[in-house]
Amino acid sequence: MEATQSPHPYIPRDLELPGYVPVLLSQSTILGVYGTASVLVIAFIWFVSGSPKRPTIDRILMCWWAFTGLTHMILEGYFVFSPEFFKDKSAFYLSEVWKEYSKGDSRYVGRDSAVVSVEGLTAVLEGPACLLAVYAIAKAKSYSYILQFAISLGQLYGTAVYFITALLEGDNFAASLLYYYAYYVVMNSFWIVIPMAISIRCWKKTCAAFNNQGQKKVKSR
Amino acid sequence: MEATQSPHPYIPRDLELPGYVPVLLSQSTILGVYGTASVLVIAFIWFVSGSPKRPTIDRILMCWWAFTGLTHMILEGYFVFSPEFFKDKSAFYLSEVWKEYSKGDSRYVGRDSAVVSVEGLTAVLEGPACLLAVYAIAKAKSYSYILQFAISLGQLYGTAVYFITALLEGDNFAASLLYYYAYYVVMNSFWIVIPMAISIRCWKKTCAAFNNQGQKKVKSR
Repeated sequence: MEATQSPHPYIPRDLELPGYVPVLLSQSTILGVYGTASVLVIAFIWFVSGSPKRPTIDRILMCWWAFTGLTHMILEGYFVFSPEFFKDKSAFYLSEVWKEYSKGDSRYVGRDSAVVSVEGLTAVLEGPACLLAVYAIAKAKSYSYILQFAISLGQLYGTAVYFITALLEGDNFAASLLYYYAYYVVMNSFWIVIPMAISIRCWKKTCAAFNNQGQKKVKSR
Repeated sequence: MEATQSPHPYIPRDLELPGYVPVLLSQSTILGVYGTASVLVIAFIWFVSGSPKRPTIDRILMCWWAFTGLTHMILEGYFVFSPEFFKDKSAFYLSEVWKEYSKGDSRYVGRDSAVVSVEGLTAVLEGPACLLAVYAIAKAKSYSYILQFAISLGQLYGTAVYFITALLEGDNFAASLLYYYAYYVVMNSFWIVIPMAISIRCWKKTCAAFNNQGQKKVKSR
């Protein structure tokens, strides 16, 4: 028996990860690729959505839905279906992302069932629904707002379960305070603030549509 | 050291529940009280909601929201804030409910963090929102459909997390096949089928409202 202590950087220290291969790409490469890819997606959607009739808010929302949908499907989808990503020796980008992110929340590398459940629902249901939302906004579909509302509520519910389960289990899954705030708090906060703003907007738009319908019925009597 | 083996009826057998007090009320009493209370709530709402102008479907929905809202707030609310219910010696009804239900899913008595998170969101946010839905239907508020849609999606998301986490952890939390199907599968299935039906209805109503609004805009040009 050799190397009984675990060589991984994650907290709790006694987390067992047989076959763990350390992060091979640098933090700046991992974050840089995600940042650059996101900017390219957003720029692409911004330019193709340009039209004199389309309000700026719709273009911003299309960019958000494309960005978050691809994040859900590619990054989170890979995590859900790759339970052994931490053993990857090939410096495959998506494995490296989750090895790195697990420094902020080791429940990812530890395969916590609440995290896998939430990520599974996010990747499989919400990811494709986000891309449908891009299309729905582009074509001004009647289901555009209720779809955006549904996905945003799903994101909020998932983030709530994600944070509450961590709190109930002692909130001690980050390798340092820096990782705790930079990865766990700051990154996830986008998926609280933006879905909340979109939910409120969709709620108001829907109430307005029903109010209009009500007034129309009263007038037509 | 005495009584090292646990005297509780739950699975897994090695679940440790120091201070556990067996279920004191009979199964028929526990189910009978819940059934009778539910029938009384539903009958009360049915009678007070009777009005020549109100469609039957609205009255049925008001009954559902009152029943599920009170279940969320009273039964599930008690569970969330009573981590030591299994030690209760007084045959207090709400403790007995959860001692009994835990035969179908021992994660309740075992205080699984995913179960507590989902139940917390259900009891604290969805419970009061259900009672607001009764009021919203009664007063034909413009937010009636989007509110019902939001709560139903929350119930569906919660039930999905509830079942998926169990599957990921081996799906072995029931004291017998009877309890597995009667409590875990059948009882929870109501919170899949009904919220799904309500979500679809609200989705269609919302699309129709936006379609009407769109037609109105076209006509008014």
